[in-house]
Amino acid sequence: MSTTPLGDAILLRADELARHSDVAASDVPQGRPRPLTVTYLTTAHRACAADLLRWMREDGFDEAGIDAVGNVVGVYRGSDPGAKRLLTGSHYDTVRNAGRYDGRLGIFVPMACVRELKRQGRRLPFDLEVVGFAEEEGQRFPATFIGSGALVGQFDPGWLALKDADGIAMREAMREAGHDPADVAALKRDPARYLGFIEVHIEQGPVLSTAGLPLGVVTAINGSVRFVGEMTGVACHAGTTPMGQRRDAATGVAELALFVERRASQVPLLVGTVGQMQVPDGSINVVPGRCRFSLDLRAPSDAARDALVADVLTELAAIATRRGLQYTLKETMRASAAPSDPALQQRWERAVAATGAPVFHLPSGAGHDAMKLHEAMPQAMLFMRGDNDGISHNPLEAINAADTQLAVQAFLNFLVQLAEEPTS
Amino acid sequence: MSTTPLGDAILLRADELARHSDVAASDVPQGRPRPLTVTYLTTAHRACAADLLRWMREDGFDEAGIDAVGNVVGVYRGSDPGAKRLLTGSHYDTVRNAGRYDGRLGIFVPMACVRELKRQGRRLPFDLEVVGFAEEEGQRFPATFIGSGALVGQFDPGWLALKDADGIAMREAMREAGHDPADVAALKRDPARYLGFIEVHIEQGPVLSTAGLPLGVVTAINGSVRFVGEMTGVACHAGTTPMGQRRDAATGVAELALFVERRASQVPLLVGTVGQMQVPDGSINVVPGRCRFSLDLRAPSDAARDALVADVLTELAAIATRRGLQYTLKETMRASAAPSDPALQQRWERAVAATGAPVFHLPSGAGHDAMKLHEAMPQAMLFMRGDNDGISHNPLEAINAADTQLAVQAFLNFLVQLAEEPTS
Repeated sequence: MSTTPLGDAILLRADELARHSDVAASDVPQGRPRPLTVTYLTTAHRACAADLLRWMREDGFDEAGIDAVGNVVGVYRGSDPGAKRLLTGSHYDTVRNAGRYDGRLGIFVPMACVRELKRQGRRLPFDLEVVGFAEEEGQRFPATFIGSGALVGQFDPGWLALKDADGIAMREAMREAGHDPADVAALKRDPARYLGFIEVHIEQGPVLSTAGLPLGVVTAINGSVRFVGEMTGVACHAGTTPMGQRRDAATGVAELALFVERRASQVPLLVGTVGQMQVPDGSINVVPGRCRFSLDLRAPSDAARDALVADVLTELAAIATRRGLQYTLKETMRASAAPSDPALQQRWERAVAATGAPVFHLPSGAGHDAMKLHEAMPQAMLFMRGDNDGISHNPLEAINAADTQLAVQAFLNFLVQLAEEPTS
Repeated sequence: MSTTPLGDAILLRADELARHSDVAASDVPQGRPRPLTVTYLTTAHRACAADLLRWMREDGFDEAGIDAVGNVVGVYRGSDPGAKRLLTGSHYDTVRNAGRYDGRLGIFVPMACVRELKRQGRRLPFDLEVVGFAEEEGQRFPATFIGSGALVGQFDPGWLALKDADGIAMREAMREAGHDPADVAALKRDPARYLGFIEVHIEQGPVLSTAGLPLGVVTAINGSVRFVGEMTGVACHAGTTPMGQRRDAATGVAELALFVERRASQVPLLVGTVGQMQVPDGSINVVPGRCRFSLDLRAPSDAARDALVADVLTELAAIATRRGLQYTLKETMRASAAPSDPALQQRWERAVAATGAPVFHLPSGAGHDAMKLHEAMPQAMLFMRGDNDGISHNPLEAINAADTQLAVQAFLNFLVQLAEEPTS
């Protein structure tokens, strides 16, 4: 008999849910995982929602349904109908050519807990509300966090006119799926009725894997800022222009990229990336007159992020002055850091400790649904190790049953401890 | 009355020849120079050849014709039919969207000298052979130095099958222009019949302009090596991958670009350029897993070039090892340095000195027809300042009449001094 029955069951469900994909992957080599693409309100997406709904009912949820934005919502009622609810969940949509655990693990784990509580005939004093969020990744329409956004009153009616690559408007896609956009506003939750939001997620990075640890307590979702820019110098002949008379846009960007790398490396938990770097129409024998670049700067606190941004922008200006270059820079995204609620984070620490696993802390470098819920209520996340060095947004994304079993156990511990010691 | 009549006449001819272009430039803003495109054996190209031939005849050349490869060749006979000839010239084709002086100046200047000698009723003891080379830039077909190559027996018959963007083979283009490819081999000159080759050319760089000098004596045409390469690391999430766990291909290339810049700057006259630098399909939030780059390394001697190349390749390997990256590197071009013949170079120095202009030395960073002739006979070049910081391969390419007058004067001095003191 397996020592990890709860983990095994989740891996099976993840495999089963991965049958549904927007894109048929016919040319996947033998033995390689099939890439998965499930975007907002496609046929595959709606089939996923139907499976989740069916499983919630099988697992013993007292209420289960699909809401006006496509979220699959189940409630396992508590013994005290007047008590505040605990909210949890994650998203079931995917990026293109994804793996099968990003988001979905955070739905499967609390579902496994409900199934287990139901099996034991146990009721918590509070309602447990589990949400499979319909959309987080922003793949089909240029909007993100559609599912969790609806719960905090941030579903933007302007989104309804957004069109996908086939020219289908979101309004149309929702209507075709049987949803009335007019009903979305009512999905907003009243924070006063909730204890908070917790979310289990694969780490999507190599930290736990490198540390050899199955679980990690998240201290904050990093704040981030993104920019796109272009450096402009003077394109000139690579043979005839002496080194001292050049205004090379590419070496200017090269200096910036190395500064970002060095500066981010100096402070633990900071990350800085120049992901785009391109000399447009570059020729071997022409000194680059232009070079496009991007900046992605993140830190566990807004203060640390802002200090990083300030240093990078100061250095960018200094490089341009020193090299006689011009530049443009446009901020394309800014997200505040979402520090974990101390009390909920402490509960995760106790819940993990009770499994016997080491308690390890790390920030989340990626955004998650918890970041949206953070705007309305206290939140804290638990990370689970990804195998293959934590690779994610990739069909090679992998987890193992033992880690998953531990995650379910930690979640159960969290629920039981909260039931038994409602005030920390 | 103008004090620069010979310079004025050349500027007028350059303007007149610029009427012929492969591409009609209809949307050039008022007051901006019209971009010029004249590629091998097009209608515009053949019209240029016809103009040059007509002018050679008007200027008093004793022989003038268009050879089997499209070169326009004129001879101003010397008083001693048994004496060795002096060969000179440059190309009349252009890059795309070019200016009007690159190459052509080196045809107009000796033509002006012949016109002047003829006006004075003066004969040199030796024949002066002036060639307007049909092709140097490699724009229409993937072959370069077609014109000067033919004179040194390097017209590759394999080129005849090369096709232009419209699928027209070079053989077909030559036949349509009335040339028989079978006659090209006979164009090879016997070096024993020549004193050497001299060439006047715009500098195509900023050195003379910055130094405030009209003329420069070329010491060598730089040797060069070109590479294209790709750095490979691991693409990963820009938010979740700690700085210490990255293998960023772009920062690897950034380090390389800055090393090339630093190393080339350490030795006078060396140049090194990373002209292409691109993260393919780069995303703001993905650490670059790949980065393409190019290398263009030049020096006035093969030894200096090879030392530069060796240091750059050593550093490339060190960067890859240090950062855990892989790379590919492919050499796409290697050209030996072509040092000027000391005796001919000295004659240029005396010819320039006799104009009253300072004698200034510089290497040529770009390749020229003289590089081809170098393989068969002694050669030396004279550079003339380009205005607008020496910008070239650009419609903004510019020269002035005073500099041009001086260049003609220096060329005349060269001829007269060689006539009067045949041994140096």
